Amino acid sequence: MNSRPKIRLFVDHPLGEAQSVPVSRDHANYLFNVMRLGVGAEVALFNGVDGEWRAEVAAKGKRGGVLVCTEQTAALQMPPDVWLLFAPIKKARTDFIVEKAAELGAARICPVRTARTNSERVRQDKLQAHAMEAAEQCGGTFVPPVDEIVSLEALLDRWDASRALVFADEAAVGPSSLSPLAGRTVLAAAPPPAAILIGPEGGFSDAERARLHAMQNVHVVSLGPRILRADTAAVSALTLWQAAVGDWG
Amino acid sequence: MNSRPKIRLFVDHPLGEAQSVPVSRDHANYLFNVMRLGVGAEVALFNGVDGEWRAEVAAKGKRGGVLVCTEQTAALQMPPDVWLLFAPIKKARTDFIVEKAAELGAARICPVRTARTNSERVRQDKLQAHAMEAAEQCGGTFVPPVDEIVSLEALLDRWDASRALVFADEAAVGPSSLSPLAGRTVLAAAPPPAAILIGPEGGFSDAERARLHAMQNVHVVSLGPRILRADTAAVSALTLWQAAVGDWG
Repeated sequence: MNSRPKIRLFVDHPLGEAQSVPVSRDHANYLFNVMRLGVGAEVALFNGVDGEWRAEVAAKGKRGGVLVCTEQTAALQMPPDVWLLFAPIKKARTDFIVEKAAELGAARICPVRTARTNSERVRQDKLQAHAMEAAEQCGGTFVPPVDEIVSLEALLDRWDASRALVFADEAAVGPSSLSPLAGRTVLAAAPPPAAILIGPEGGFSDAERARLHAMQNVHVVSLGPRILRADTAAVSALTLWQAAVGDWG
Repeated sequence: MNSRPKIRLFVDHPLGEAQSVPVSRDHANYLFNVMRLGVGAEVALFNGVDGEWRAEVAAKGKRGGVLVCTEQTAALQMPPDVWLLFAPIKKARTDFIVEKAAELGAARICPVRTARTNSERVRQDKLQAHAMEAAEQCGGTFVPPVDEIVSLEALLDRWDASRALVFADEAAVGPSSLSPLAGRTVLAAAPPPAAILIGPEGGFSDAERARLHAMQNVHVVSLGPRILRADTAAVSALTLWQAAVGDWG
């Protein structure tokens, strides 16, 4: 039994028995210049579809090379069908939300523009790269797709009510909370398919809150008596959902 | 009823009815130069002891000033008695763990040096400042003390077994997990006083794991089938604990 390769890479290429995988220029620099791997060295590869494969360096060059798959080391493990919908905030915290959503097993990451979203522009390609890096780091075999930003209004217009929508209503938390609902009871009613919606730092507008509360299959969860930043709320809500009805059971 | 002041500051000074509070040089710069508050303007103050007070600017200067408390707007709200013990990692992620622990209601934050902790030096004063800023942001009236770093060994040597010790054993999670324990059952057995221990990126050593498993009142919690970074594990574990036996019920 060989030990697990220390280097783990996402590649956009089919993986399988004896499959040759071309090495991109960036990966060639990382593998052969930075990490100084030689021919015969082993890496772990995944592509979000075919699980994880052990692969050997078969050829190396300054700007490319060839890896050959030797054995599958993990099957594809899909996360439960839960989406994370969030209003982008400052760049570092937005990056963080995407990283954490991938780690925590979100199936899809959807930036949404709300009435009080300050950050109008989101680099979808950069966020997708963050999700991919998080999967590389956390041993995941799946990379959640990151959508282009859409308005919350448009998203709700076409919402399929068979997907439970969980949100933390900041007007129902904080020190003034009268009756915080027990999260686990609420979440037990929101099994997959589900989505978790995290508002912007300024909270949802009254119109947004009214619309959300009027929708079917919407579940309001409490995240405790303190006010959480949006990035914390995303991690906490995903954690509670995974533990209640996701794959942390 | 006045609206809630937008500026919220931690001050190291007693607060109470008609109490005068001197303005530090840093706060004077922030309040009077950056935010351009004039005499009579209102701020919210807390000191971790006396709850939250509304205060008015009574005098202002370039390097100081005086605030006078007018009414208490929130009583001191203590978090449940749960400590977060964590092995420092890269600076940004260590800062993040401290910020999130304060937001999520940890009563005390204890950096610990483990066998595989890379970061030997921790600036306790900087981490304490992060906890204070997090309390300012999240509306908290309590600021968890941040300890100086100690070795895990020394901490366990003097551990009081009446305090439940919860840890995520990374050897019991990940894709190879055979029987992940249901977090909520484990945590129901770990009410306050409790502590949550988060290992370093490289995990605990075999000796550390053996020692932890041999201790009384130790509870191993699962954080799901994916490998979480240490900062994510800290947020997730605190969330699950708060929801199970803390003040999120």
